[in-house]
Amino acid sequence: MTPITLKETADLLLDSNSILLLTHSHPDGDTLGSATALAHALKYAGKRVAVICGDKIPSAYDFMFEGLDTEGFEPELIAAIDVADEKLLGDEFRGIYGGKIDICIDHHGSNLGYAKRLLLDSTAAATAEIVFNLIEQLALPITELMASALFTGVSTDTGCFRFSNTTADTHRIAARLIELGADTGRIIQVFFETKTKAFANLERLANESMRMYCDGRCAIITVTQAMFRASGADESETDRIANLPRQIEGVLVGVTIRELKDGGYKASVRTHGEIDAAAICKRLGGGGHPGAAGCTLTGTVKQATNALLKEIEAELEAYCIA
Amino acid sequence: MTPITLKETADLLLDSNSILLLTHSHPDGDTLGSATALAHALKYAGKRVAVICGDKIPSAYDFMFEGLDTEGFEPELIAAIDVADEKLLGDEFRGIYGGKIDICIDHHGSNLGYAKRLLLDSTAAATAEIVFNLIEQLALPITELMASALFTGVSTDTGCFRFSNTTADTHRIAARLIELGADTGRIIQVFFETKTKAFANLERLANESMRMYCDGRCAIITVTQAMFRASGADESETDRIANLPRQIEGVLVGVTIRELKDGGYKASVRTHGEIDAAAICKRLGGGGHPGAAGCTLTGTVKQATNALLKEIEAELEAYCIA
Repeated sequence: MTPITLKETADLLLDSNSILLLTHSHPDGDTLGSATALAHALKYAGKRVAVICGDKIPSAYDFMFEGLDTEGFEPELIAAIDVADEKLLGDEFRGIYGGKIDICIDHHGSNLGYAKRLLLDSTAAATAEIVFNLIEQLALPITELMASALFTGVSTDTGCFRFSNTTADTHRIAARLIELGADTGRIIQVFFETKTKAFANLERLANESMRMYCDGRCAIITVTQAMFRASGADESETDRIANLPRQIEGVLVGVTIRELKDGGYKASVRTHGEIDAAAICKRLGGGGHPGAAGCTLTGTVKQATNALLKEIEAELEAYCIA
Repeated sequence: MTPITLKETADLLLDSNSILLLTHSHPDGDTLGSATALAHALKYAGKRVAVICGDKIPSAYDFMFEGLDTEGFEPELIAAIDVADEKLLGDEFRGIYGGKIDICIDHHGSNLGYAKRLLLDSTAAATAEIVFNLIEQLALPITELMASALFTGVSTDTGCFRFSNTTADTHRIAARLIELGADTGRIIQVFFETKTKAFANLERLANESMRMYCDGRCAIITVTQAMFRASGADESETDRIANLPRQIEGVLVGVTIRELKDGGYKASVRTHGEIDAAAICKRLGGGGHPGAAGCTLTGTVKQATNALLKEIEAELEAYCIA
């Protein structure tokens, strides 16, 4: 893997006639917003381009794909956008594209460097920030649609400018995207201000499941498959549940344990201040950012909870001593 | 009332040796953040200055007042900050300062023009934006504390950059405040990410009270005094409840009806898109912004609800025809 600059990335893209952009599985606003905005720009520059994803893309993101190809083809250049690890392409895409990725554009400090070349800026709150700068470097226009796609990336990866990864540059790019015509009202309504009634039901059940640990410094919510059935909520909506436990006054570590369909649990850990969520999850085989990380757990829900609590207590103790 | 410019306001402030800054009752992040930041700047310029409020100031805002006077005195100049109407000073302050306010600095389009001179920018999402520009105009330094006070104003008046009043300038000012050292992590944690357990209880009760009207386009939450008692929540926290009903998918008008201690009801109306919350509330004797407004109602809760629904239906109908 060779680290490359914005300029080098721009040159490589301009030198290729056909480019395939890969997004990560369980696609989110940043991987899709970044990839589609870049695709629109490259199409404008006369390239053949497609954005593909190993998973089904939720309909909320459809607007980004207006006029874009979403079928794979044999390209001159393969780029992975916001994909920290080849595994995150999903099994099928990993089988097809594994070891063949020419460029990765990413903001995850945890990027494994699997691509031949890597444009990484771990100070960027979202890959969409890097892509914004890249399109400016390419001297290509940013349409209203592209601005909306990039604003979706920036806003969803920062919890709408709330997470600690939000920087002055994040706000400055948001300002530019608004001036370029990003439909912020619709984006914020869809991604932050709208709950289905089913989700509101799930949220209520999740809140009722909340238990406090570590003298109130840790709160854990447990979302079971039974709760999904009772509420009618979609599992894709659980990401939004993950922020709830950390919101309780005094809580430094908020955890959401979600029972998976095929058994086992997915834990989402959110922390305040100096507590390192990635460190907690890494010790359980997972990873992520300092403020937001995740891991997979097995056994009973009690065993899963205890395994997590052990690492959380250790992290809280280290923090209190430090 | 004479409208004045930023430059004229700066000159008037610089020409006075002692300045009293008034904030509105039920003080919020914008009136307090704007007034205290300006006070720190004026103090730096050698002025005698105090920030006063007719109501008790919640402890979350204490940090803004570090080193500032909070006692009234006989000043050369009296300025009201973020106060749209003299009534909003509260009865006591209105009695003392009514008709004597030399300058008002405000962003409310509904400002009644009660002051001798008015610096109004209704395109600003927060008065803190105007004060930021004013301090730059004054060529006075913005310390970390002042940046934090202004960031509190900007973020609380925009729902942390979510409300439709948020502009490119809002984000650009936020970027500058971050560079100047605003403690965004703490501010966002305190004002947006923290719920007391009592508040979480109230939120649960409020969500349970939610009823849908107008084919799902209107949702109404009713918060009673009994709910405050049962949850242990503070009435000052109800502002945060007000956004809940509008979040349900398909809802265009979200209403929170709060039973007042001394009888009667306070309704908070939040709307999406083109629906005018201020128009709805104005017809019931209240007012506010297009997306967020309020009014006071009397009678039984059923009568209050029906009075509101009548105006909401009219507004929804006008919108559907338009």
